[in-house]
Parts: sequence; C-alpha cells; structure tokens
Amino acid sequence: MRIDLNADVGESFGRWPLGDDDALLAVVTSANVACGFHAGDPLTLTGTCRVAVGHGVTIGAQVGYRDLAGFGRRFLDASPAELTADVVYQLGALDGICRSVGGRVAYLKPHGALYNAIVHHEAQAAAVVAAVISYDATLPVLGLPGSAFLRRAEEAGLRAVREGFADRGYRADGTLVPRGEPGALITDPAAVAERVLQLVTDGSVTAVDGTRVSLQVESVCLHGDTAGAVDLARAVRARLEDDGVTVAPFAA
Amino acid sequence: MRIDLNADVGESFGRWPLGDDDALLAVVTSANVACGFHAGDPLTLTGTCRVAVGHGVTIGAQVGYRDLAGFGRRFLDASPAELTADVVYQLGALDGICRSVGGRVAYLKPHGALYNAIVHHEAQAAAVVAAVISYDATLPVLGLPGSAFLRRAEEAGLRAVREGFADRGYRADGTLVPRGEPGALITDPAAVAERVLQLVTDGSVTAVDGTRVSLQVESVCLHGDTAGAVDLARAVRARLEDDGVTVAPFAA
Amino acid sequence: MRIDLNADVGESFGRWPLGDDDALLAVVTSANVACGFHAGDPLTLTGTCRVAVGHGVTIGAQVGYRDLAGFGRRFLDASPAELTADVVYQLGALDGICRSVGGRVAYLKPHGALYNAIVHHEAQAAAVVAAVISYDATLPVLGLPGSAFLRRAEEAGLRAVREGFADRGYRADGTLVPRGEPGALITDPAAVAERVLQLVTDGSVTAVDGTRVSLQVESVCLHGDTAGAVDLARAVRARLEDDGVTVAPFAA
Amino acid sequence: MRIDLNADVGESFGRWPLGDDDALLAVVTSANVACGFHAGDPLTLTGTCRVAVGHGVTIGAQVGYRDLAGFGRRFLDASPAELTADVVYQLGALDGICRSVGGRVAYLKPHGALYNAIVHHEAQAAAVVAAVISYDATLPVLGLPGSAFLRRAEEAGLRAVREGFADRGYRADGTLVPRGEPGALITDPAAVAERVLQLVTDGSVTAVDGTRVSLQVESVCLHGDTAGAVDLARAVRARLEDDGVTVAPFAA
Repeated sequence: MRIDLNADVGESFGRWPLGDDDALLAVVTSANVACGFHAGDPLTLTGTCRVAVGHGVTIGAQVGYRDLAGFGRRFLDASPAELTADVVYQLGALDGICRSVGGRVAYLKPHGALYNAIVHHEAQAAAVVAAVISYDATLPVLGLPGSAFLRRAEEAGLRAVREGFADRGYRADGTLVPRGEPGALITDPAAVAERVLQLVTDGSVTAVDGTRVSLQVESVCLHGDTAGAVDLARAVRARLEDDGVTVAPFAA
Repeated sequence: MRIDLNADVGESFGRWPLGDDDALLAVVTSANVACGFHAGDPLTLTGTCRVAVGHGVTIGAQVGYRDLAGFGRRFLDASPAELTADVVYQLGALDGICRSVGGRVAYLKPHGALYNAIVHHEAQAAAVVAAVISYDATLPVLGLPGSAFLRRAEEAGLRAVREGFADRGYRADGTLVPRGEPGALITDPAAVAERVLQLVTDGSVTAVDGTRVSLQVESVCLHGDTAGAVDLARAVRARLEDDGVTVAPFAA
Repeated sequence: MRIDLNADVGESFGRWPLGDDDALLAVVTSANVACGFHAGDPLTLTGTCRVAVGHGVTIGAQVGYRDLAGFGRRFLDASPAELTADVVYQLGALDGICRSVGGRVAYLKPHGALYNAIVHHEAQAAAVVAAVISYDATLPVLGLPGSAFLRRAEEAGLRAVREGFADRGYRADGTLVPRGEPGALITDPAAVAERVLQLVTDGSVTAVDGTRVSLQVESVCLHGDTAGAVDLARAVRARLEDDGVTVAPFAA
Repeated sequence: MRIDLNADVGESFGRWPLGDDDALLAVVTSANVACGFHAGDPLTLTGTCRVAVGHGVTIGAQVGYRDLAGFGRRFLDASPAELTADVVYQLGALDGICRSVGGRVAYLKPHGALYNAIVHHEAQAAAVVAAVISYDATLPVLGLPGSAFLRRAEEAGLRAVREGFADRGYRADGTLVPRGEPGALITDPAAVAERVLQLVTDGSVTAVDGTRVSLQVESVCLHGDTAGAVDLARAVRARLEDDGVTVAPFAA
C-alpha cells in the first residue's frame, strides 16, 4: 500500500505571503508549485523549490490562467494556441527555477479555474495536453478522475495520475460536493485522516449520503492555504504511516 | 574572417505587433528573443522561435526588467536576489518555448535598461551572472566590451562574447555616442555595411572625431524595430559575404 | 437628421503603437478611449484625451476586462462585485486623465469580450450598470440594441444609447453576421457610407439576405484599427454631410 | 493643540490580504489608500474606502510606481511625463472608487520608493506636483519636511503638509535613522505615544544621540502592516486624547 500526498505551495507574491510552505514541505511528498501566472514571483519560487529539493519532495508545475488579480480562480476564455503557449512558458519558467536549485519539474497539475474548466472543456484540455507533449512527453499529469484532461492525456500517451481530495465531500456519483453545500468540506483532522486511509486501503470513499463509492487514486490533495492546513496534513501522514502505508511521490 | 549578426526579435505583445521577425530571421545568425518581462507573450515567442529554428538561427534569451509598460527601458532598482530569480525565470521560460519547437536557448543577452545598468552597476551585473551560472554555466553571454557584466561573467568562468553596434557612432574612448547627440546614429545602409566590414576585417571602428579605435568583437548588433531595419540588415550581410566574411553564429 | 460617429482610440500601450488616433479624432464625434485594463497606458491616454478635447470630440470610457495580454477580447468570469469595482476604477482613472487636460468622461462603452458578454450575461450586465450608477448616474451608456446591458441600463434609469456598425453585415433578425462568415465585413468605403446613410435617414439596414431590417440608432461605430480605417471614416462623414445629415455627439 | 494621524491601508491584492484596515480605520484620521499600482485591487479599495467613509476618516491617494511585484518599494526611472500621467491615473481611479461609496480623495501621499526618491529627485518631484496641479490644484500633499517634493509643491501653490513618523528614530540633523541601524525603529507603544505627544505639544523630537530637534508637523504617520500596528495606533491616540490633544484630519 502506497500513496502520494500533494499540496499547493509557492503561492506568495512579492510583499504578500501566503501559506506556510516550509512546514507543508516537511509533510507532503509532491509539491504543486505555482508558476507566476496566478501566483508566485520568481524569488518566492526559488525559495520554495530550494526547500522542496532539500526535503526530497517531488516538484510539479502548477500552471494557471494569466490572472494575478483573480489568483487564477476565474475562467478565462483563452484560445487553445494561447493556452498551450502559456502552459509551456510556465513549465519552462518553473523548470528553470528548479534547475537553479538542483531540482527538476517532474509533473504538471492545473490550478484553480483551469483545473475546473478542463474537467469538461475539451479544447482547453487538449491545449494543456499539447503543451506537455511539446515540452516533455515523459512528464506525468495530475488531475481529476474522469476529467476530459486525464482522458486526453492518456490518449496522447502521457501518464495520467488520478488524485482524490482529503478534505472534500463526495457525492454518490463520485463527483465533489460543490463548495457552499452541506458536507462540502471536512475539517476534523481525525476524520480526514480516516477518509484518506479508506481511499488508500480500500480504494473507496464514503459519499455524503453514506454510499460507498469506488475511487482509485495515486495521490491525495491536501489544501495548504486554510487555517490548520499544516496540522491536518501532519495528522493524515501520521495516520497513514501508523497503518503501514508507504507515503511516497508518484513521480521522481 | 568570421562574424555573427544578432538582432532583437519576439518583441510583439498580444494585440500589438512589433518588428518584422520573419524577415530579420532570414538575415541574422543569432536572435535575441524577448522573454516576456519587457515584451513577448508566449504565443508570439513560440512563433518567433519556430521561425528561428527553421532558419537555423541561434536563439538567445533577451532578459529584461519586469516592466511591460516601460518596455524594459527604465532602470528598476531590483535587489540582486530578485534580479537573479527574475533572470532564471525568463531563461527557463524561453528555453521551454524553444524546446516545444525543437530548439534551445544558446546564450543570454540583457535588454534595454538592464543592458545599460550592468555596464557599471556591479551588484546587478553580478546578479545576472549568478543567474546564468545557476541555470547553465555553459551558456555564453553577449554584452558590451568593457562592461562590468562581461568582466564578471569571465571571472565566473562564463564565455563572455563582445558585441559591436552596426549603426551607432563611437567616441574616441570606445564608448557609444549617446542617443540624441550628433553622430549617434548611422542610417545609410552602405555606410553601416562599410563600418561592419571594418570591424570584422580590421578589428577597428572609426570614431566621430575620425580616430581609429581598436574594437574586437565576435558579434554585431543590428537594430530590428526601426524603419528600414530589414533592408539595413540585408545590406550588411550582403556586403560581408561579398568580401568573403563568414557570417555564422558565435554559439550553437 | 442627426447621427453620432464613434470609434475606439487610446489603444496603444507603452512601446506599442496602435491606430491613428490623431487622424480618427479629426473625423469622429465620440471617442471610446481605452482605460488601461485592456489597453492604454496613462501617458498614451493623456495624449489621446488632449487631442480629443482639442477637436471638441466627446470622450467615453471604453472599459474592459483586466487582460492586457488578451486585449480584453477573451471572456473573463469576474464576479459581479469584482467587475463593478473594476469598471468604477477605470471610469475614475480615465476621468482623472480627462480632467488633467480639461475634459470629462461623458459616457461609457464596454470593450471587446465584455461588450459581447453583456449582450446576454445578466449578472455582468447588471454589474456594469451598477458601476455607472454608483459613479455618476447621469452618464449615458453606449451599447448593442437589444442587449441585456442596454435593457438593464434603462431599467436603472440610465440613458441607454443604441449603436449600429458601419462596416458589419447584419442578418435578417437584426443580429450581426459573425466574423469569418460571408458578408461579415464590408470594406468598400462607398458601400459603407451608403449603409450608414440608410441607417440615419431610413432607420434601417439591408441584411445579407436582402431583407430590409428596421434599426434605430443614435450612434454609428467606425472601426479604428483596421487598414484604411481613417479613409473609411472620412468617406462616411463626407457622405453624411453631403446629404445634409448633422454629425454631432450624442452626449457632451 | 491638534494633530492628524495617518496610516497606509488598502494594500491587499486579490487573494492576498495585508494589514487590518478595519481596525486601523477606527483609530486614524487620515487613510493613505493604495491606488492599484503598487497594491490595492479595485474591490479591496472599494471596501476600504467604504469603511473609511463610514468612520469619517479622510481619504488620501497613496500613489506609487507601477510595480506590483516590488510593492512600489524599488526605484523606477520613469520619465517625468510618464510619472505625471501615472499619478493622475491613480488619483482619478481612487477618486472614482471613493465617489462610488460617497467619498472623495482629499489629499495625495507618495508611497514607498517614490516617497523616498522625491526627497531628492527633482524631476520626479516636479512630475508628481504637476500631476496634482493638473488634476485638482486644491488637493493638499503629504510628505517629508525638507523634501524637494514639499518645496516644489509649495512653490506651485499647493498646500504642503509635513508629517513625522511615530515609530522611527531621528538623527540630530532631523533625518530618519536608516532601517537596519540601531535606533531606527521604536516598538514600545508607550515610548511611541510619548514621542508623538512631544512632537505635538513641543514641536520637537529627541534624536538617537539625545539631542532635542525642532520638528513641526501637521500629521503623524503610523505604520499599518507590522505586527502590533493596531495596538500601537490605539496607544498613541489614547495618550494624545488623554493629554487634551485634538486628533483630527488635516484635510476634509
């Protein structure tokens, strides 16, 4: 039994700090590092990647829309050609930063509104896949099971890695309970740890209506910018290791 | 006898075209491609790099200050740590774009106010050198003979490539005539070609006061965004080749 | 008989010129001046507004999404609160620039993707209307006849000014022929002038299928950034004046 | 006896919060609100201005260089014409936001590197003054006693308001102890309150070497983004009011 734990880091920008990267990077095995388009100035990114390399944490490029003011959380109707170029640019930029501190980008994960858009938006999903293919076709991509993005990535010959969410409620059909609805967020560390354990050992998640839903994932996403994020991450990792689960990156 | 011809390209941004990259890339042997901080959106850069690769033109990263509104032509008092990270980010970003079209960044040239600043600004010069060292210590850098930048690059073990300016007037001490002063700009294609030939074959330039100044360069910079830039570039190249000079990139 | 002629200006950005504002401002009666979010740096805007004031041209704020890289031509899913604040900010900014050269913003016109979105997007249409109400409820707004934007503006008590397009083809239902389809664009100056004259004198436009469609407008939009834009604008104005139509701003 | 207390607010940006504006605005009498160039997205600014208006706090435009990544803390060699236009744009933008919530910009204060630059940089000082003159020559400006900025403002007929710093050490010549040197920062609330009281009642400050330096100011600057900023502000205000000093805005 083996699982990867991923979290978003590198999301400060200039004068504005965000998240406790140093603490999170001591817990997770994969770091989704922002690439400067939704967050992450180059100096911040350098520091974050240096710490990740120091901890042996695998680095992924967390690419997003070019929208600092909206933190990449607003859909932007970029053309496929624009989006492909924007993703390649971000991949290369973060890879450069990694290289300067002795690391490399080892996978890609879309951020925010882009992540959500390419669950269904075929043209943008294809554009992100095309970017990875043209940059480095050996890079795995991390995303939502059942998304257009992972399907197209697989069809194109990329390694498509499925992730689950530690602190999000699921519906009986396997989709996430939308934020704002009852059961959307689980905040109790013990409960979250228990759910992750079930994901790993049983390949299932218990939906809000009590249904047991089958869900195969290679990585579990921990949120980094909420209060108590670090404590929750530690609780999850400790519980997994107590139960003999190997916590290790899916890529290296 | 051998010389490289370099010019700035990739300086459009979104809706705003600038320069005739396609025509210039058919003439020069090295292309200083903008990296997105002073100019160059990712889609533009992709197109420019694709054409450069098609013509066998060597690609350099033309890194600048983070100042789109000022086109990188205004000094920005970035700290050395910020500047190093900004340069690494730009190097990586352009290298990613190159990679996506089958090319690689083969050298670095600073742009605009950064180019001018690091003639004398020791801390920023050191910061740019540190960026190259940490990104890829085999990359040559292109700059002004006698600058702090080239001196520090050499001391750090980088290949420091000296360039001359085809259409700029020189003073007797080997510095450029400041723009706005008489003799600062030479616009007649035949005269420019003649000067470049002298640079290459005689290792000298004739200063505004008639003095013959010794000047050893491996590359000559042609300006790309002025009216008649392409015609001038063609005139220079034709004249060089007529006289048996090999026009070839200094790096590959 | 009376009509206003409007065109987009102030769309240069820093080093990148766009359009021939000086020539256009000698022809039109209303200038849709960019506000810095999709185009228009403050120095450009100052120059454009100064020329507009000099010609007695009425100035409107051409507000757009915060998207320089996309020139405001890509839908951005901003929240209503964000969009209202963004529009107020742009209105104030341009009004400040106008004030510094002796003018004032006299109306608002949405730009690009925002213009298109609020034909149907009720929440964003309401957000733009709310911005105008909170900034200056006496400002007219210029937009597409039949749009959610103009309907909501009217309901909120704003003066809603309808515009037609001089060089665009119409369908029998009064909507525009989408760009890329046959008949979408009319480029012959004489034909364009003829159509504008029909709009003004007959309140109608001839659709691509030959149908005569009733269309009441107070202003006609001339495009400024295409080749021949200025010649076309002059042809339209000359034709209107020859036929005794008063060409004058709808607001002052 | 009467004094104004000013502090910087509105310096959040999008996803990134900064400072406790609500608490500070309950204490100070003048709010230096960011204008979007160094910090402050339009929605943040709207909220901040609404709270300021609610508390009867006077609003000033805190204008800065166009440098989000550097938070306006890096000198930018903008030309006077660019700087004047940038300042007018920011003044108008914030004034628009104010207007939308029932307020008005009542003064200008330069931010960060611009504040420091125009202590000595005559051309940029003149450019900021020119902006105020062209926008609204009745607006007071707030700045450093003895600066080129205040001298030029006065010469141009503007009301030039001098400010002191509550928590900064002074040297015997009346200049501030540079950050990083011993005595640069005073963090004990009681000591800070005592110093402000001396400034107000005695028109003097005790320098680091014990010298009593004469210093006439109409406003005292409290820093808002440091830990304990709000407590310190409250301590200062309470001490002043206990001693019968009227705490009131210098402009309204």
